[in-house]
Amino acid sequence: MKKYDVIIIGAGPAGIITGVTAKKENPDKNILMVREEEKGLVPCGIPYIFHSLNSVDKNVMGPKPFIDLGGDVITDLIVNVDIENKTVKAKSGDKFSFEKLVFATGSRYVEATFIPGYELKNVFYIKKSYNYITNLFNELKDKKNIVVVGGGFIGAEVAEQLALHADKKVSLIESEEYCFSKAFSNELSEIATESLNKTKVNVQTSTLVEKVLGENGVVSGVQLNNKNIISADAIIFAVGYKPNSELAATAGLKTNKVNAIIVDNYGRTSENNIFAVGDCSQTLGFLTGRCDNIMLASTATAEARVLGYNLFGVKIKNSFTGTIGIFSTEINGLSMAAAGLNEKNTLSSNIDFITATFSDFDKHPGTLEGTLPLTTKLYVSPSDGSILGGEIWGGKSSGEIINIIGFAIQKGLTVYELISLQIGTHPLLTSAPTKPVIIKAAEVAISKIRDCKK
Amino acid sequence: MKKYDVIIIGAGPAGIITGVTAKKENPDKNILMVREEEKGLVPCGIPYIFHSLNSVDKNVMGPKPFIDLGGDVITDLIVNVDIENKTVKAKSGDKFSFEKLVFATGSRYVEATFIPGYELKNVFYIKKSYNYITNLFNELKDKKNIVVVGGGFIGAEVAEQLALHADKKVSLIESEEYCFSKAFSNELSEIATESLNKTKVNVQTSTLVEKVLGENGVVSGVQLNNKNIISADAIIFAVGYKPNSELAATAGLKTNKVNAIIVDNYGRTSENNIFAVGDCSQTLGFLTGRCDNIMLASTATAEARVLGYNLFGVKIKNSFTGTIGIFSTEINGLSMAAAGLNEKNTLSSNIDFITATFSDFDKHPGTLEGTLPLTTKLYVSPSDGSILGGEIWGGKSSGEIINIIGFAIQKGLTVYELISLQIGTHPLLTSAPTKPVIIKAAEVAISKIRDCKK
Repeated sequence: MKKYDVIIIGAGPAGIITGVTAKKENPDKNILMVREEEKGLVPCGIPYIFHSLNSVDKNVMGPKPFIDLGGDVITDLIVNVDIENKTVKAKSGDKFSFEKLVFATGSRYVEATFIPGYELKNVFYIKKSYNYITNLFNELKDKKNIVVVGGGFIGAEVAEQLALHADKKVSLIESEEYCFSKAFSNELSEIATESLNKTKVNVQTSTLVEKVLGENGVVSGVQLNNKNIISADAIIFAVGYKPNSELAATAGLKTNKVNAIIVDNYGRTSENNIFAVGDCSQTLGFLTGRCDNIMLASTATAEARVLGYNLFGVKIKNSFTGTIGIFSTEINGLSMAAAGLNEKNTLSSNIDFITATFSDFDKHPGTLEGTLPLTTKLYVSPSDGSILGGEIWGGKSSGEIINIIGFAIQKGLTVYELISLQIGTHPLLTSAPTKPVIIKAAEVAISKIRDCKK
Repeated sequence: MKKYDVIIIGAGPAGIITGVTAKKENPDKNILMVREEEKGLVPCGIPYIFHSLNSVDKNVMGPKPFIDLGGDVITDLIVNVDIENKTVKAKSGDKFSFEKLVFATGSRYVEATFIPGYELKNVFYIKKSYNYITNLFNELKDKKNIVVVGGGFIGAEVAEQLALHADKKVSLIESEEYCFSKAFSNELSEIATESLNKTKVNVQTSTLVEKVLGENGVVSGVQLNNKNIISADAIIFAVGYKPNSELAATAGLKTNKVNAIIVDNYGRTSENNIFAVGDCSQTLGFLTGRCDNIMLASTATAEARVLGYNLFGVKIKNSFTGTIGIFSTEINGLSMAAAGLNEKNTLSSNIDFITATFSDFDKHPGTLEGTLPLTTKLYVSPSDGSILGGEIWGGKSSGEIINIIGFAIQKGLTVYELISLQIGTHPLLTSAPTKPVIIKAAEVAISKIRDCKK
């Protein structure tokens, strides 16, 4: 039985970044990564396989950087972990022993078992699996009527992409009033849903799928709670993901109420030398310290960098305890992003805030060709003026400006500090120096706070 | 003689933002802004007048937001300031008295009086004047051979824009080895110059203009120090700007060795109740506290926000003492930006640093259409790992990523903190979550620092 210093179960973003970082820091340690399939997918790129990339193989990622550093990789499925004896057993029958073990088992799609007809042929999911998505990609080629169930990021992006094919009719069914409502505020969810409505997708919100209809065991449509029927030759459920933690739980690791593996700030589980990272592990709210359930590749890789550096003792401290979700997307050419608190995700935490909004353009002067609007909304503590959350939408620079907002949240920056923040501007690249949207929104917040204190 | 609580001399970005902020904060104060011309220009938009906007009037900005708040504006030229009696006198003969006075007189182009022939007809400058630029725009319409002298931002951008006209031959003469060498590192200056070389502009670096040649008092070309002659029917000198501080100096205000008005961290001059802001006022290096000479609209507006809030007593402290220059541009579709320290601008300050570079793409996977490379270079203190400077080039998101780097410099962020920084990523908007360029460059820096400490 081969012994490894470290075994990493999983080769998604969390597993790869843990492996790369740990191997780079500890070139003398032998590290094994176990992946389930030969090829892996860029998770957030999956929707773009269906049109923009028009290829599964253009969206692959793998542990090559880890292998280049001298890491070992096998393709197998770990079926048993023996924490006491420090061994793992694979489906192939192979056994390995470890000094340290990392669960980077990611998340699994939620199955639609609660909807009658879910077992029919041509009911699909967005599994993070090269083999599955390759099959789905091929299956969808001749499908004309497709119903996507679930208007979160994955569902909405997949629907938008599929609808770009001239020969496909695509419907999107979302139970909430707006799509994207888990990540975005009411205001931005509505804007995002409107943007989706401008595409060819038939968006039906506040609507539930009651039943998947079939003929001869094959999907023929869906019946909605409003009794309407939409004909379909394929259904794609995108109704969420859950931590893939069964193996860890069976091995005896503690999990939380959403079945995420409980870890501390350095990815350490309840057992010595056993770690968990990424979607399978617990995240705690940055402001609240309470359990939330953020599963994002960007969050996972940040955790993995911390774990990779610190696997053999804490060498670089985790500077930001707690997780803020930072979400971004683009629908029909409208970029949208959110970080931290909004009026919905804070509901149960009862955090006091005011909002401040400012709109301008993503270039300047606004008369330049290709200029798009840019609007930011900040969520600010009325007591100390610290930035608790923010959203931005409009031009593509939203995708990086949200990282400035995210940075501000993590560093506890106040709107008062933003007044003197120095930035760079350029006509072709940013808002005008007279109206940088974040700073102008900070000014709005300062006025609001002063008015409520009067 | 009308008395004002505040008189602001100048209606560029610094003047307007001081006025808007001060009036918003102090609605009961009467504030006068004095502008030289009826219409003002967006300073950094001027190069784009010559092609992308193809219009002067698409690049105007004015004090409307200030007027909307109840501010007074006159078009006149202040010719005398009497600090003792607190009065100003305009060219029209009008006199006004003030409680507080703000110099926002900006900067003036450097005249080419050191080059024989500078007085010939069709020698032009990039003056920040609506009337002058309108005339230049019209004059250049029928000019076929144009020589731009000076390869800083303004000169290079103007040359790039003019060369987009099929009927124009444009040459750019730069004395240094590369264009943009005042703002960019050697590496990025070279890349920027290469990008300019890919346009139709005939770029000649390490070259001096010895003489402007003329016939009958009209420009006919330039003679270079290599004895070559370039024929030209127009010459545009873009050889720098200097603080427009003569009025202030005559009034008795102290100026520094580059003739910028000396101010403290709140824009206060050597005289009570007299302020200066923007290009006409002194900037001190963020790291060194020594006088530098940063004249950027983005810097000016940050100073103006601080001044506007604090004109009647410091209400919001200036959180970032000292100035970091943040520069960005786009040449031939390549975006480039720099913030803070590089190996050239730190030369006289003798600051210890290491550099760390990382390249990836501005979208992910890199197979997505329209994906551009993205490279960042960080300048990092080898002792504490704090980020001292940075550059980024490639896709358009460089224009906002440089603001993340600028933010990091101002907040004293270290490369160790960057490891755990949480960011948001999206295929269409950012690098991959596994390879955010700033964080990966931080990893490179950490390895380098560890290696030099071994």
